[in-house]
Amino acid sequence: MITIPTLLLDEKRCKANILTMADKAKRLGLDFRPHFKTHQSLEIGRWFKEVGVDKIAVSSFDMAMYFSKEWDDITVAFPVNILEIDKINDLAKRVILNLLVESKDSIEFLGKNVEGEVSLFIKIDVGTNRTGVQPDNHDEIFSLIELIQGFDNLRFKGFLAHTGHTYQCDGESEINAVHNKAISILSTLKHCISDKYNNFIISLGDTPACSVSENFEGIDEIRPGNFVFFDVNQSYIGSCHTNQVAVAMACPIVSVHPDRNEITVYGGGIHFSKDRQDTPEYGTVYGLGVEMDGETWRDVIEGMYVRKLSQEHGVIKVPAEMAAQLKPGNLVYVLPVHSCMTVDLMQAYLEVRSGKTISARYKTYLAE
Amino acid sequence: MITIPTLLLDEKRCKANILTMADKAKRLGLDFRPHFKTHQSLEIGRWFKEVGVDKIAVSSFDMAMYFSKEWDDITVAFPVNILEIDKINDLAKRVILNLLVESKDSIEFLGKNVEGEVSLFIKIDVGTNRTGVQPDNHDEIFSLIELIQGFDNLRFKGFLAHTGHTYQCDGESEINAVHNKAISILSTLKHCISDKYNNFIISLGDTPACSVSENFEGIDEIRPGNFVFFDVNQSYIGSCHTNQVAVAMACPIVSVHPDRNEITVYGGGIHFSKDRQDTPEYGTVYGLGVEMDGETWRDVIEGMYVRKLSQEHGVIKVPAEMAAQLKPGNLVYVLPVHSCMTVDLMQAYLEVRSGKTISARYKTYLAE
Repeated sequence: MITIPTLLLDEKRCKANILTMADKAKRLGLDFRPHFKTHQSLEIGRWFKEVGVDKIAVSSFDMAMYFSKEWDDITVAFPVNILEIDKINDLAKRVILNLLVESKDSIEFLGKNVEGEVSLFIKIDVGTNRTGVQPDNHDEIFSLIELIQGFDNLRFKGFLAHTGHTYQCDGESEINAVHNKAISILSTLKHCISDKYNNFIISLGDTPACSVSENFEGIDEIRPGNFVFFDVNQSYIGSCHTNQVAVAMACPIVSVHPDRNEITVYGGGIHFSKDRQDTPEYGTVYGLGVEMDGETWRDVIEGMYVRKLSQEHGVIKVPAEMAAQLKPGNLVYVLPVHSCMTVDLMQAYLEVRSGKTISARYKTYLAE
Repeated sequence: MITIPTLLLDEKRCKANILTMADKAKRLGLDFRPHFKTHQSLEIGRWFKEVGVDKIAVSSFDMAMYFSKEWDDITVAFPVNILEIDKINDLAKRVILNLLVESKDSIEFLGKNVEGEVSLFIKIDVGTNRTGVQPDNHDEIFSLIELIQGFDNLRFKGFLAHTGHTYQCDGESEINAVHNKAISILSTLKHCISDKYNNFIISLGDTPACSVSENFEGIDEIRPGNFVFFDVNQSYIGSCHTNQVAVAMACPIVSVHPDRNEITVYGGGIHFSKDRQDTPEYGTVYGLGVEMDGETWRDVIEGMYVRKLSQEHGVIKVPAEMAAQLKPGNLVYVLPVHSCMTVDLMQAYLEVRSGKTISARYKTYLAE
C-alpha cells in the first residue's frame, strides 16, 4: 500500500520505449549506447540487454562503478574529473573505459597516471556552450589528438558531442534544425580529420533528436538516455506524447482547498526535484496530473498541474469537480517534469502492474 | 582529500547561528522549537541540546522516526498524512507528538485510529496560500476545535502558521511588513478564541522573520529551520549576510573556458538542487562563488556565480583573472541557493576545519 510519495514505473511502456529506440538505431545502422543516468538501475539495465545492447554511457565514475557489476563497456559521458584517478584505474582494469577530454592538462594527467588503458573521446561543443572544444578549432583538435597518441596507455576513440540545446526546442522542426546543424558541424569535422586520422568514431545523442530525427549522416553511435521514461519536459519539446511517459509519482493528499481549486500533497522538491516547465496553458509547472484506471495511469487530466513545490509540499491545481470530491488520504498521480532528476531523488520504483519494487540505488551503493 | 562534489560545513559559523537564535528566543520569552528539516542530522541536533533546546519540528514522519532516537517532543510541521497512521502510532508511544490538522476528515480519522495520545495544531493560513484554514473563518475553527475535543486521544494544542511568503521579500522592511501582518492576524484569532478556550499556544516561525523581526506579540513558540546554515536565498531576502552562511559546496573543475570566462564543474542539479535565485547583478543564479583561505571559506567573489545546472554539470561564470588561472582538477567553492535542498541531496557534511564527516542520512536510515 502506498503511504508516502512513490515513484511508479510502467514496465510495459518503458520496455516499448527501449525497443523503439533500439530498433531505430538498428534500422539506421547506428551503434546504440544508451545513457543510464536516467534510470540508474541495474535491473532496468537488464531490459536493455534483452534487446541486444552491450555498451552504456553514464555521467559519473560512481555510476560507472555501480554499473560495472554487469557492464563491461562504459563511457563516462562527462569531462573527465582527474581527481577520481583511483576509480579510473580501478575501472580500467575491469571494463572498456571511455573518457571525455577537452584539454591538454587532462590528457597529460591521464597519460601520466592511468594504469592499464583508457580510450578518449574529444568533447566537441556543437553549440550548447557547456563543455567541449570548438569544432572549427582544428589546430587545437589536432594537437589534442597528437598528445593522446603520444601516450601508450591512451587511445584516441573519436569525437563526442551532446546537442543539449535541443532541450530548448519547441516541436519537431526546431529539434531537427538544431540537430541538423550539429550533424553538419560533426560531418565537416570528420571530413577534415579523416585526411590525417582514421579509425575513430563520432558519438552523438540527446533524446529529442534521437526520438524525432532520421538524419544521422556521419554519426556512428547514439547515446540518448531520457527516452527510457520520457517526461513532461520531453512532451513539450516534442520528443514524445505524454502517454509514452513511463514513470509517474503517486502522492498522498494532505490538504484540500475547493475555494481555490487546489490540493496540497505530500510530494515536494525533495521528491520531484525543482525542475520546471513553462507551458502555454498553465504557466510554469512542476508536473502534470494523470488519471489512474486501476491498472496503470492514462491520459493527463486537463487543468491538473503542480503549480508550486516546497521541500515536501506540492501545491496542485485541479478541476473544480475534482477539488469537490478529493479528500486527505486520497492519492493523486503526477508525471514529473524531468524524470532523470526525480529518479535520482526517489532511488526506487514501484512497478505499477506487478507491485514489484525495483531499486535505483547507486547512491546507496556508494554509502555502503 | 576531496575528489567529488562535497558539502562543507563550518561548525563554528553554524554554532554561532544556533546560539544567536536561541539567545533571541530567550530574550523575547519565546519557546524555541527549531525545524530540523534543514540539517537532517542527529549530530547537529546535539548542538541545539547544548544551548538548552528540548523540542523540535520536522517535516515528515520519516524524519520524526529518525530524530525520535534522541528527541522526545516532536512537531511534524506538515498537514498530517493520515496514510502514515502506523508511524503515527509508533511515534505516539515513544514521544510527545504534535500534528497539524486543517480538516474534519483528518481529525475524525485520527480520533478513530490513534492509539495513545497526540496533540493537534490547527494550521492557519496567514497569507501563504499553501495550506491551512483561513484565520477569519471562526465557525470552521470552532468546529474543528470541538471535534478534536470530542476525542479522548486528541488534544487541542493551538494554532500553527508559517509565513512562507516572507521568502518572496526583499529586505528587512518587507519581511517586517509581511511578518507584522501575520502577527496581527494571529493576535486577532487568539483574542477571539480566548473567550471560549484557553490553554493553547501559537506557533510561528520562518527564518526571515525570526532573523530580523523583534515583534512576536502574542506568539508562544518559534520554529525557524534554515537559519542553522542560511544560504544565498536568505542573503537576498535579507535574513543574513553571506558571511553567516555555514555550508558551501566544494566542486572539482572539469572544463575551463577562458574565452567566455566560464568553468564547468562536477556539481549539478543532483548535488545543489535546481533551486534558483534571481539577482539584480547576475540574473538567475544557482549559487555564488566564495574564496577559500585555507581554514574556511570567506567572502563571495564578485562576478563568480553558477549560471546553469544540468544533472551533474555546473556552469560557473568567473572573473577573467580566475578563468586564466584555473585548471581541471582544481576545486572551487560555492554557496548554495537553498541549503535545505542541497543537504537533502548530499546527505553528509565535511566539517571544514576538523575534516570530520557528519552524517545527515535520514534517507539512508529509511533504506535500512
